[in-house]
Amino acid sequence: MKAPIDFYFDFSSPYGYLASTKIDALAARHGRKVNWRPMLLGAAFKATGGAPLPSIPLKGEYSKRDFLRSARFYGIPYHPPEPFPVSTVAACRAFYSLADGAERRKLASAFFNAYFVDNLNIGEPANVLKVARELGLQPDIESQAVKDRTRAEVEAALAKGVFGSPYIIVDGEPFWGVDRFEQIERWLREPF
Amino acid sequence: MKAPIDFYFDFSSPYGYLASTKIDALAARHGRKVNWRPMLLGAAFKATGGAPLPSIPLKGEYSKRDFLRSARFYGIPYHPPEPFPVSTVAACRAFYSLADGAERRKLASAFFNAYFVDNLNIGEPANVLKVARELGLQPDIESQAVKDRTRAEVEAALAKGVFGSPYIIVDGEPFWGVDRFEQIERWLREPF
Repeated sequence: MKAPIDFYFDFSSPYGYLASTKIDALAARHGRKVNWRPMLLGAAFKATGGAPLPSIPLKGEYSKRDFLRSARFYGIPYHPPEPFPVSTVAACRAFYSLADGAERRKLASAFFNAYFVDNLNIGEPANVLKVARELGLQPDIESQAVKDRTRAEVEAALAKGVFGSPYIIVDGEPFWGVDRFEQIERWLREPF
Repeated sequence: MKAPIDFYFDFSSPYGYLASTKIDALAARHGRKVNWRPMLLGAAFKATGGAPLPSIPLKGEYSKRDFLRSARFYGIPYHPPEPFPVSTVAACRAFYSLADGAERRKLASAFFNAYFVDNLNIGEPANVLKVARELGLQPDIESQAVKDRTRAEVEAALAKGVFGSPYIIVDGEPFWGVDRFEQIERWLREPF
Protein backbone atom coordinates (compact mmCIF):
# COMPACT_ATOMS: atom_id res chain seq x y z
CA MET A 1 0.00 0.00 0.00
CA LYS A 2 1.34 3.40 -0.96
CA ALA A 3 1.52 6.25 1.57
CA PRO A 4 -1.68 8.22 2.16
CA ILE A 5 -2.15 11.70 0.72
CA ASP A 6 -2.18 14.60 3.19
CA PHE A 7 -5.15 16.89 2.61
CA TYR A 8 -4.90 20.20 4.49
CA PHE A 9 -7.78 22.64 4.47
CA ASP A 10 -9.68 25.25 6.45
CA PHE A 11 -13.37 24.53 7.06
CA SER A 12 -14.31 28.04 5.86
CA SER A 13 -12.32 27.82 2.61
CA PRO A 14 -14.49 27.58 -0.52
CA TYR A 15 -11.71 25.97 -2.54
CA GLY A 16 -11.07 23.61 0.39
CA TYR A 17 -14.73 22.63 0.29
CA LEU A 18 -14.64 22.03 -3.47
CA ALA A 19 -11.51 19.92 -3.04
CA SER A 20 -13.11 17.94 -0.19
CA THR A 21 -15.77 16.60 -2.54
CA LYS A 22 -13.15 15.26 -4.96
CA ILE A 23 -10.07 14.21 -2.98
CA ASP A 24 -11.14 10.75 -1.79
CA ALA A 25 -12.15 9.58 -5.27
CA LEU A 26 -8.95 11.02 -6.75
CA ALA A 27 -6.83 9.16 -4.22
CA ALA A 28 -8.83 5.93 -4.56
CA ARG A 29 -8.23 5.89 -8.33
CA HIS A 30 -4.56 5.48 -7.49
CA GLY A 31 -4.88 3.11 -4.56
CA ARG A 32 -4.33 5.80 -1.96
CA LYS A 33 -6.04 6.83 1.24
CA VAL A 34 -6.41 10.45 2.39
CA ASN A 35 -5.40 11.96 5.71
CA TRP A 36 -7.84 14.80 6.26
CA ARG A 37 -6.07 17.56 8.19
CA PRO A 38 -8.09 20.68 8.99
CA MET A 39 -5.95 23.68 9.85
CA LEU A 40 -6.52 27.36 10.54
CA LEU A 41 -5.90 29.67 7.61
CA GLY A 42 -5.61 32.61 10.01
CA ALA A 43 -2.47 31.06 11.49
CA ALA A 44 -1.02 30.60 7.99
CA PHE A 45 -1.83 34.21 7.10
CA LYS A 46 0.30 35.32 10.06
CA ALA A 47 3.24 33.54 8.44
CA THR A 48 2.65 34.76 4.89
CA GLY A 49 1.16 38.20 5.53
CA GLY A 50 -1.93 36.98 3.71
CA ALA A 51 -5.52 38.03 4.35
CA PRO A 52 -8.96 36.53 3.76
CA LEU A 53 -9.85 36.90 0.08
CA PRO A 54 -13.01 39.00 0.57
CA SER A 55 -10.94 41.68 2.30
CA ILE A 56 -8.58 42.18 -0.66
CA PRO A 57 -9.46 44.89 -3.21
CA LEU A 58 -10.18 43.61 -6.75
CA LYS A 59 -9.13 40.05 -5.87
CA GLY A 60 -11.95 39.81 -3.33
CA GLU A 61 -14.67 40.62 -5.86
CA TYR A 62 -13.12 38.28 -8.40
CA SER A 63 -12.92 35.48 -5.85
CA LYS A 64 -16.61 35.58 -5.00
CA ARG A 65 -17.34 35.13 -8.68
CA ASP A 66 -14.72 32.42 -9.08
CA PHE A 67 -16.03 30.43 -6.08
CA LEU A 68 -19.45 30.23 -7.72
CA ARG A 69 -18.15 29.60 -11.22
CA SER A 70 -15.68 26.92 -10.06
CA ALA A 71 -18.49 25.15 -8.17
CA ARG A 72 -20.61 25.17 -11.33
CA PHE A 73 -17.61 24.03 -13.37
CA TYR A 74 -17.13 20.99 -11.12
CA GLY A 75 -20.87 20.42 -10.67
CA ILE A 76 -20.74 20.89 -6.88
CA PRO A 77 -23.56 22.54 -4.90
CA TYR A 78 -22.37 25.87 -3.47
CA HIS A 79 -24.28 28.56 -1.64
CA PRO A 80 -22.15 31.63 -0.74
CA PRO A 81 -22.07 31.54 3.07
CA GLU A 82 -22.80 34.55 5.19
CA PRO A 83 -20.91 35.56 7.33
CA PHE A 84 -17.74 34.69 5.43
CA PRO A 85 -15.12 33.75 6.40
CA VAL A 86 -15.66 32.53 9.96
CA SER A 87 -13.34 31.21 12.64
CA THR A 88 -13.10 27.45 12.38
CA VAL A 89 -11.33 26.83 15.69
CA ALA A 90 -14.35 25.06 17.23
CA ALA A 91 -14.86 22.91 14.11
CA CYS A 92 -11.17 22.01 14.10
CA ARG A 93 -11.23 21.05 17.77
CA ALA A 94 -14.35 18.94 17.25
CA PHE A 95 -12.59 17.13 14.41
CA TYR A 96 -9.38 16.44 16.30
CA SER A 97 -11.25 15.40 19.47
CA LEU A 98 -12.44 12.29 17.63
CA ALA A 99 -10.08 9.36 17.50
CA ASP A 100 -11.81 7.39 14.76
CA GLY A 101 -10.79 8.27 11.18
CA ALA A 102 -14.17 7.41 9.66
CA GLU A 103 -15.97 9.60 12.19
CA ARG A 104 -13.58 12.48 11.55
CA ARG A 105 -14.13 12.12 7.83
CA LYS A 106 -17.91 12.12 8.18
CA LEU A 107 -17.86 15.11 10.51
CA ALA A 108 -15.60 17.08 8.17
CA SER A 109 -17.96 16.68 5.22
CA ALA A 110 -20.89 17.57 7.45
CA PHE A 111 -19.19 20.84 8.47
CA PHE A 112 -18.46 21.72 4.84
CA ASN A 113 -22.02 20.96 3.78
CA ALA A 114 -23.49 22.84 6.71
CA TYR A 115 -21.50 25.96 5.82
CA PHE A 116 -21.38 25.91 2.02
CA VAL A 117 -24.73 24.34 1.21
CA ASP A 118 -27.07 24.89 4.19
CA ASN A 119 -25.69 28.31 5.19
CA LEU A 120 -25.22 27.31 8.84
CA ASN A 121 -22.58 29.43 10.57
CA ILE A 122 -20.05 26.83 11.69
CA GLY A 123 -18.07 29.59 13.37
CA GLU A 124 -20.58 29.22 16.25
CA PRO A 125 -19.60 26.44 18.68
CA ALA A 126 -23.29 25.65 19.23
CA ASN A 127 -23.67 24.94 15.51
CA VAL A 128 -20.54 22.81 15.49
CA LEU A 129 -22.03 20.64 18.23
CA LYS A 130 -25.41 20.57 16.46
CA VAL A 131 -23.90 19.28 13.22
CA ALA A 132 -22.00 16.62 15.16
CA ARG A 133 -25.09 15.58 17.14
CA GLU A 134 -27.02 15.01 13.92
CA LEU A 135 -24.37 12.41 13.06
CA GLY A 136 -24.66 10.85 16.52
CA LEU A 137 -21.24 12.23 17.49
CA GLN A 138 -20.29 14.01 20.69
CA PRO A 139 -17.03 15.82 20.07
CA ASP A 140 -15.17 17.68 22.80
CA ILE A 141 -14.39 21.29 21.94
CA GLU A 142 -13.60 22.53 25.43
CA SER A 143 -10.94 20.41 27.09
CA GLN A 144 -7.38 21.63 27.33
CA ALA A 145 -6.17 18.36 25.84
CA VAL A 146 -8.20 18.94 22.66
CA LYS A 147 -7.13 22.58 22.46
CA ASP A 148 -3.51 21.49 22.75
CA ARG A 149 -3.94 18.75 20.16
CA THR A 150 -5.54 21.19 17.72
CA ARG A 151 -2.81 23.76 18.22
CA ALA A 152 -0.17 21.09 17.67
CA GLU A 153 -1.85 19.98 14.42
CA VAL A 154 -2.01 23.54 13.11
CA GLU A 155 1.62 24.16 14.04
CA ALA A 156 2.66 20.93 12.38
CA ALA A 157 0.86 22.04 9.20
CA LEU A 158 2.69 25.37 9.20
CA ALA A 159 5.97 23.55 9.79
CA LYS A 160 5.22 21.50 6.66
CA GLY A 161 4.90 24.77 4.70
CA VAL A 162 1.11 24.73 4.44
CA PHE A 163 0.07 28.31 3.64
CA GLY A 164 -3.27 27.92 1.89
CA SER A 165 -6.37 25.78 1.49
CA PRO A 166 -6.60 23.24 0.03
CA TYR A 167 -2.98 22.13 0.29
CA ILE A 168 -2.21 18.56 -0.67
CA ILE A 169 1.04 16.69 -0.11
CA VAL A 170 1.74 13.55 -2.14
CA ASP A 171 4.93 11.72 -1.16
CA GLY A 172 6.51 15.03 -0.14
CA GLU A 173 5.34 16.97 -3.21
CA PRO A 174 3.09 19.94 -2.31
CA PHE A 175 0.12 21.11 -4.38
CA TRP A 176 -1.88 24.22 -3.55
CA GLY A 177 -5.41 24.64 -4.81
CA VAL A 178 -8.24 22.57 -6.18
CA ASP A 179 -6.98 23.78 -9.57
CA ARG A 180 -3.92 21.56 -9.12
CA PHE A 181 -5.99 18.36 -9.05
CA GLU A 182 -5.01 17.45 -12.60
CA GLN A 183 -1.36 17.82 -11.73
CA ILE A 184 -1.97 15.64 -8.66
CA GLU A 185 -3.70 13.07 -10.82
CA ARG A 186 -0.75 12.90 -13.18
CA TRP A 187 1.72 12.89 -10.26
CA LEU A 188 -0.09 9.90 -8.73
CA ARG A 189 0.28 8.01 -12.00
CA GLU A 190 3.92 9.03 -12.21
CA PRO A 191 5.91 11.98 -10.82
CA PHE A 192 6.88 14.33 -13.65
CA MET B 1 -17.06 37.24 -35.81
CA LYS B 2 -17.22 37.08 -32.03
CA ALA B 3 -15.45 39.64 -29.85
CA PRO B 4 -11.73 39.09 -29.19
CA ILE B 5 -10.47 37.79 -25.86
CA ASP B 6 -8.51 40.24 -23.71
CA PHE B 7 -5.27 38.71 -22.45
CA TYR B 8 -3.59 40.74 -19.69
CA PHE B 9 -0.17 39.76 -18.40
CA ASP B 10 3.12 41.02 -17.03
CA PHE B 11 6.23 40.12 -19.02
CA SER B 12 7.98 38.88 -15.89
CA SER B 13 5.10 36.63 -14.78
CA PRO B 14 5.86 32.89 -15.11
CA TYR B 15 2.17 32.01 -15.25
CA GLY B 16 1.68 34.81 -17.79
CA TYR B 17 4.43 33.25 -19.90
CA LEU B 18 2.86 29.78 -19.68
CA ALA B 19 -0.50 31.25 -20.66
CA SER B 20 1.07 33.14 -23.57
CA THR B 21 2.05 29.87 -25.24
CA LYS B 22 -1.52 28.57 -25.12
CA ILE B 23 -3.91 31.50 -25.45
CA ASP B 24 -3.92 31.96 -29.24
CA ALA B 25 -4.67 28.31 -29.96
CA LEU B 26 -7.35 28.25 -27.26
CA ALA B 27 -9.05 31.29 -28.77
CA ALA B 28 -8.68 30.02 -32.35
CA ARG B 29 -10.48 26.76 -31.46
CA HIS B 30 -13.51 28.93 -30.76
CA GLY B 31 -13.17 31.36 -33.63
CA ARG B 32 -11.74 34.13 -31.48
CA LYS B 33 -8.82 36.48 -31.74
CA VAL B 34 -6.74 37.62 -28.77
CA ASN B 35 -5.91 41.16 -27.69
CA TRP B 36 -2.52 40.91 -26.00
CA ARG B 37 -2.37 43.55 -23.27
CA PRO B 38 0.83 43.69 -21.22
CA MET B 39 0.41 45.48 -17.90
CA LEU B 40 2.56 46.12 -14.84
CA LEU B 41 1.93 43.81 -11.92
CA GLY B 42 3.60 46.31 -9.59
CA ALA B 43 0.80 48.78 -10.27
CA ALA B 44 -1.78 46.08 -9.51
CA PHE B 45 0.00 45.19 -6.27
CA LYS B 46 -0.42 48.80 -5.14
CA ALA B 47 -4.18 48.31 -5.47
CA THR B 48 -4.39 44.89 -3.83
CA GLY B 49 -1.57 45.11 -1.29
CA GLY B 50 0.03 42.18 -3.09
CA ALA B 51 3.72 41.46 -3.45
CA PRO B 52 5.92 39.50 -5.87
CA LEU B 53 5.60 35.79 -5.08
CA PRO B 54 9.28 35.17 -4.29
CA SER B 55 9.10 37.72 -1.47
CA ILE B 56 6.28 35.92 0.35
CA PRO B 57 7.24 33.42 3.09
CA LEU B 58 6.19 29.79 2.36
CA LYS B 59 4.22 30.78 -0.75
CA GLY B 60 7.40 32.05 -2.42
CA GLU B 61 9.21 28.72 -2.07
CA TYR B 62 6.14 26.84 -3.20
CA SER B 63 5.74 29.08 -6.23
CA LYS B 64 9.23 28.45 -7.52
CA ARG B 65 8.48 24.75 -7.45
CA ASP B 66 5.05 25.22 -9.00
CA PHE B 67 6.41 27.36 -11.87
CA LEU B 68 8.73 24.52 -12.87
CA ARG B 69 6.21 21.75 -12.32
CA SER B 70 3.45 23.61 -14.19
CA ALA B 71 5.81 24.18 -17.13
CA ARG B 72 6.59 20.44 -17.20
CA PHE B 73 2.87 19.64 -16.85
CA TYR B 74 2.07 21.72 -19.93
CA GLY B 75 5.22 20.67 -21.78
CA ILE B 76 6.54 24.23 -22.07
CA PRO B 77 10.26 25.10 -21.89
CA TYR B 78 10.99 27.07 -18.71
CA HIS B 79 14.26 28.18 -17.23
CA PRO B 80 13.93 30.02 -13.88
CA PRO B 81 15.09 33.55 -14.70
CA GLU B 82 17.57 35.41 -12.57
CA PRO B 83 17.02 38.17 -11.44
CA PHE B 84 13.33 37.59 -10.81
CA PRO B 85 11.04 39.42 -11.01
CA VAL B 86 12.22 42.41 -13.02
CA SER B 87 10.61 45.70 -13.98
CA THR B 88 8.88 45.32 -17.31
CA VAL B 89 8.21 49.00 -17.96
CA ALA B 90 10.63 49.15 -20.90
CA ALA B 91 9.23 45.96 -22.44
CA CYS B 92 5.69 47.30 -22.04
CA ARG B 93 6.61 50.59 -23.67
CA ALA B 94 8.31 48.79 -26.55
CA PHE B 95 5.16 46.74 -27.08
CA TYR B 96 2.75 49.67 -27.01
CA SER B 97 5.00 51.81 -29.21
CA LEU B 98 4.24 49.48 -32.12
CA ALA B 99 1.03 50.09 -34.03
CA ASP B 100 0.87 46.78 -35.86
CA GLY B 101 -0.86 43.92 -34.01
CA ALA B 102 1.22 41.17 -35.61
CA GLU B 103 4.45 42.95 -34.71
CA ARG B 104 3.27 43.46 -31.12
CA ARG B 105 2.37 39.78 -30.89
CA LYS B 106 5.75 38.66 -32.23
CA LEU B 107 7.61 41.01 -29.91
CA ALA B 108 5.66 39.84 -26.86
CA SER B 109 6.55 36.19 -27.45
CA ALA B 110 10.16 37.17 -28.05
CA PHE B 111 10.28 38.97 -24.67
CA PHE B 112 8.79 35.96 -22.89
CA ASN B 113 11.22 33.57 -24.58
CA ALA B 114 14.18 35.83 -23.90
CA TYR B 115 13.37 35.97 -20.20
CA PHE B 116 11.98 32.51 -19.44
CA VAL B 117 13.99 30.38 -21.84
CA ASP B 118 17.20 32.26 -22.70
CA ASN B 119 17.67 33.92 -19.29
CA LEU B 120 18.08 37.40 -20.77
CA ASN B 121 17.18 40.14 -18.28
CA ILE B 122 14.39 41.99 -20.07
CA GLY B 123 14.30 44.47 -17.20
CA GLU B 124 17.26 46.11 -18.95
CA PRO B 125 16.16 48.59 -21.67
CA ALA B 126 19.22 47.63 -23.74
CA ASN B 127 18.06 44.01 -23.79
CA VAL B 128 14.54 45.05 -24.70
CA LEU B 129 15.89 46.88 -27.75
CA LYS B 130 18.19 43.95 -28.59
CA VAL B 131 15.30 41.47 -28.62
CA ALA B 132 13.30 43.83 -30.84
CA ARG B 133 16.22 44.40 -33.20
CA GLU B 134 16.59 40.65 -33.74
CA LEU B 135 13.04 40.71 -35.08
CA GLY B 136 13.82 43.70 -37.29
CA LEU B 137 11.73 45.97 -35.07
CA GLN B 138 12.66 49.39 -33.76
CA PRO B 139 10.35 50.19 -30.88
CA ASP B 140 10.38 53.52 -29.09
CA ILE B 141 10.79 53.27 -25.32
CA GLU B 142 11.74 56.85 -24.62
CA SER B 143 9.19 59.27 -26.02
CA GLN B 144 6.67 60.93 -23.75
CA ALA B 145 3.89 59.82 -26.08
CA VAL B 146 4.81 56.15 -25.58
CA LYS B 147 5.21 56.60 -21.83
CA ASP B 148 1.76 58.18 -21.69
CA ARG B 149 0.22 55.45 -23.84
CA THR B 150 1.73 52.75 -21.64
CA ARG B 151 0.52 54.39 -18.45
CA ALA B 152 -2.96 54.74 -19.94
CA GLU B 153 -3.00 51.04 -20.87
CA VAL B 154 -1.93 49.99 -17.38
CA GLU B 155 -4.51 52.27 -15.78
CA ALA B 156 -7.21 50.94 -18.09
CA ALA B 157 -6.28 47.39 -17.03
CA LEU B 158 -6.59 48.30 -13.35
CA ALA B 159 -9.91 49.98 -14.06
CA LYS B 160 -11.09 46.69 -15.57
CA GLY B 161 -10.21 44.97 -12.28
CA VAL B 162 -7.05 43.27 -13.52
CA PHE B 163 -5.05 42.35 -10.40
CA GLY B 164 -2.91 39.43 -11.55
CA SER B 165 -1.18 37.76 -14.45
CA PRO B 166 -2.44 36.16 -16.58
CA TYR B 167 -5.90 37.72 -16.45
CA ILE B 168 -8.25 36.92 -19.29
CA ILE B 169 -11.57 38.55 -20.04
CA VAL B 170 -14.05 36.77 -22.30
CA ASP B 171 -17.18 38.76 -23.12
CA GLY B 172 -16.94 40.53 -19.75
CA GLU B 173 -16.21 37.36 -17.73
CA PRO B 174 -12.83 37.53 -15.92
CA PHE B 175 -10.52 34.54 -15.43
CA TRP B 176 -7.33 34.73 -13.37
CA GLY B 177 -4.55 32.24 -13.92
CA VAL B 178 -3.35 29.76 -16.50
CA ASP B 179 -5.10 27.20 -14.29
CA ARG B 180 -8.43 28.65 -15.40
CA PHE B 181 -7.86 27.73 -19.06
CA GLU B 182 -10.23 24.77 -18.86
CA GLN B 183 -12.94 27.00 -17.48
CA ILE B 184 -12.23 29.46 -20.31
CA GLU B 185 -12.44 26.64 -22.83
CA ARG B 186 -15.84 25.59 -21.52
CA TRP B 187 -16.99 29.22 -21.29
CA LEU B 188 -16.07 29.76 -24.95
CA ARG B 189 -18.21 26.77 -25.91
CA GLU B 190 -21.03 28.04 -23.73
CA PRO B 191 -21.13 30.27 -20.62
CA PHE B 192 -22.02 28.19 -17.59
